[in-house]
Parts: sequence; structure tokens; C-alpha cells
Amino acid sequence: MSEFVNFCHILTDISGPIIRSYFRTHLTVEDKPDNSPVTLADRAVERAIREKIAQTYPQHGIYGEETGSSNTNAEYVWVIDPIDGTKAFITGKPLFGTLIALLYQGKPVLGVLDNPILQERWIGGDNVPTTLNDRIVRVRSGFALNQATLYATTPDMFKGHDYTLFKKIHDVVKLPLYGCDCYAYGLLASGFVDLVVEASLSPYDYCALVPIIEGAGGIMTDWTGQALGLHSDGKVIAAVDKQIHFQALELLR
Amino acid sequence: MSEFVNFCHILTDISGPIIRSYFRTHLTVEDKPDNSPVTLADRAVERAIREKIAQTYPQHGIYGEETGSSNTNAEYVWVIDPIDGTKAFITGKPLFGTLIALLYQGKPVLGVLDNPILQERWIGGDNVPTTLNDRIVRVRSGFALNQATLYATTPDMFKGHDYTLFKKIHDVVKLPLYGCDCYAYGLLASGFVDLVVEASLSPYDYCALVPIIEGAGGIMTDWTGQALGLHSDGKVIAAVDKQIHFQALELLR
Repeated sequence: MSEFVNFCHILTDISGPIIRSYFRTHLTVEDKPDNSPVTLADRAVERAIREKIAQTYPQHGIYGEETGSSNTNAEYVWVIDPIDGTKAFITGKPLFGTLIALLYQGKPVLGVLDNPILQERWIGGDNVPTTLNDRIVRVRSGFALNQATLYATTPDMFKGHDYTLFKKIHDVVKLPLYGCDCYAYGLLASGFVDLVVEASLSPYDYCALVPIIEGAGGIMTDWTGQALGLHSDGKVIAAVDKQIHFQALELLR
Repeated sequence: MSEFVNFCHILTDISGPIIRSYFRTHLTVEDKPDNSPVTLADRAVERAIREKIAQTYPQHGIYGEETGSSNTNAEYVWVIDPIDGTKAFITGKPLFGTLIALLYQGKPVLGVLDNPILQERWIGGDNVPTTLNDRIVRVRSGFALNQATLYATTPDMFKGHDYTLFKKIHDVVKLPLYGCDCYAYGLLASGFVDLVVEASLSPYDYCALVPIIEGAGGIMTDWTGQALGLHSDGKVIAAVDKQIHFQALELLR
């Protein structure tokens, strides 16, 4: 696994300078068919990461946000979101991140969340305790749900009945906050947030986060408590411990 | 005015190191009577800023978030929010800021927004073009309301009918985003955001932002288009130009 950890550092050492070169430069923003924005920066970063993976591990599969997938039935598959939080990125807000996951037989076993503006990099995985800039981090614990801090990127991500379910948790916790994209999961892994509940996500939005959360002692599943993978429904919950996870899942049923 | 600009630098040179020393240190969080959180950091920063003002300008008034007001009928009054975004601060999220305004005869004429973690400092005012780290910034222009990017800290800040009015704008703009506290106004002043609409604010939350927005070419008023001061009702709108400001005010009536 340490070979792949090193490779994650190599990949994000490549992506970071590209993102920094485009940040706050008034890029043209295109709308994708799903209405989400994309820029030259997203595409350039994904291209660079894919090239490096294809060069180093030609037998591995790749599943990327911007340029599709290849060989995703391979034993090892890399799942890439070049800029998670493109909406934040295009407003000059520095809380976004490059997400890269390694899946082994469909299971996310290693993840990296790299914020190239704040120069913060979380890496965690199976038998890889989660680190933030090479220092081990742990979730906090001991807060009941009604004392918890909750993050979601925006209430707009919850459609129809999903909003009703999310609102139940929102109304129980002590501090419901918005606006972090992937960065909220980094804060949870680092012991500052108890719960993240989100929906309408794609595999490249959450696969890298599962090993980071679990490598820090937390739990991350879908809203039914099932393990997350390429075929999950995009509703996710990350929690610091079994108690809060269970209490929140009860409300999400 | 340049004397006061220099003094703003002195004040935020004092506050920044204090905030950095407390950031991500698992502070005890107390709840104030209005249920908003406060920490040792907020109090230590406000104390240090007040002491420096009292020492330098003993005849000036002071209006602070954490330790009350003194001599607010003076010709010059300083309005201080030691940490705007305490909720973000206690979750380890670096998007908060120290806000300091100078009011002359009740009108905000100078403001500073200092983010000590990202080391970004916006200063602007009457005859003081707004700068970010000493480089002049300007709002962008030319986006119609339906092409605009909107920020608000959280939809939870809009109570009752205010939410209905905010929702009208939310549903018209292209990109409604959450979660920035004062930082959203810095992004607007720097040309990356078109509109910020908020409510339930206190004078220390908005007084410093008015001169920063206006010194960058934007407009900031209450929801009826009136100038903001110590006695406004806490509903604010910041816009890049008259057209978007007018269109948004129409929806907020």
C-alpha cells in the first residue's frame, strides 16, 4: 500500500500547481449537460492525472469526472475528481479539493483530498492511518447527536423527500453548517466536525473520502448503512462514531 | 484617512497572531444568550483591539461584539467583530475574519476584513480604493441577475417572510452558494461574486463591509436600499452594480 500512498503524493504534486495557476484567473465557465460547471482547470488537472496513472499502471482502470472511464472492471481502479467544488473554485473561494481514490475489487482502499491553495493534503486508507500533511489525525468522539456539528455543502443538494429526511437531522444537531464540499470531510477526519450528510453525489465525489474518514476512525456509508462504491446512489453519511452514525441513520430511514 | 488605514493594519497585525494561536486547538465553546458561540479567542482578540484603540484614540467610541460599547455618540466610533464566523472558526474551517469598521458621524467610512489563516486582508473606504493585500481590487460587472453568483452564509439566517423573499432571489440567480460569512464580501469586492444577501446580522457583522464593497465599486445597503449604520435592521445586500442591486431589491420588497 505504501507504494500507492507515495503515488498519491506524486499525483497531487502534479495537480496542485496546475490548479494554483488557474485559481482566481477569471476562467471561462462551461455548463455540462447536468448543469454543473467545468473549466479548463478541471480538464487540465484530470488529463495530467490520467496520463500519469496510465503511464505508471497501464493495467489499472480509471473513472474520472471530466473525461469518462476506462477499464473499470480492472482489479485496481482510480477514481478522480480533479476539482471537487468547482462552484467554489470559480468564485475564488479556496475550499475545494482534488479527490483521488484507489478501489481494489470495487472497494475504496485509499483516498487523497488535496487542497492546493491552503496546501493541506489528507491521505488515508486500509492500514494507512489518515494524515493531514503527514501528521496523523483522528476523529473526535463523545458528542451526542443533539450536541453535534453537521456539514452539508448546500441544502439544494437534497431533492424531494431527501430534503425532509436531511431536515430531520438538521433540526436535531446543535450546529448545522453549509458550504464546504469535500473539505468538510477533512475537518471531520481531523476532529472538528461530527457529521456530514450529503446527497446527489457521484462516485468521484465520495470514493476518496471513505478511506480518509475510516483511516481516521470514523464511519462513512450510504443512507442505508451500506458500504459505498461505484454503484451507490449518491447519498452519503460520514460520522465520527457508531453512535452518531446509528442515530442519524434512524432519522434518514 | 491614511492615518486610520495604517491604524487598521496595526490592529489586524495584533489580532492575527492571537487568532492563529487558537485556531484548531479544541477551545471550549460557550453559548451566548442569543445562542451564538463564543470562545476565549473571540474575547482575547476583542480585548487586544479595544486596548489599542483606547490607548491611541481615547476620545473615540467603541462598539464591540463581545464586550459591549462605550462612547458611541463620539464623532468617530470603531465597530469590532473579533471573529466574524465563530461557527466556522470552531470547526477548523479557515473562512472567517476579523472585521473592524470606523464610523464617522454614524457612517462607515473605513473597513478592514482580515483573514489571519489565509493571510488575506481587505481594506477599503471613502477615498480609499479597496485593496487585498495592498493590491487594488474591483468588483466585476455586466452579469444580469439570472447569470449572477449569490452567496449567503446559510438559509437558516432568514426567518419567516425574510426566507420567502431571499428564496425569490435564490431561485432567479444562476449560482446560489452558501457558507462564507464575511469572506463572501471579500470575494465580491475582488470580482468573483455578484451578490451577497443576508439577514439577522448585527452592526459588527456588516459595518466594516460597506466601505470595502463601496471602495471596490459596489453597492451595499439594507433591503430597502437605505444606507447601513449602527441602527439598521440587520438585513443587508451587497451588489456589484446598480442594475443587480435594483433587480434584487425589487424581489426583496
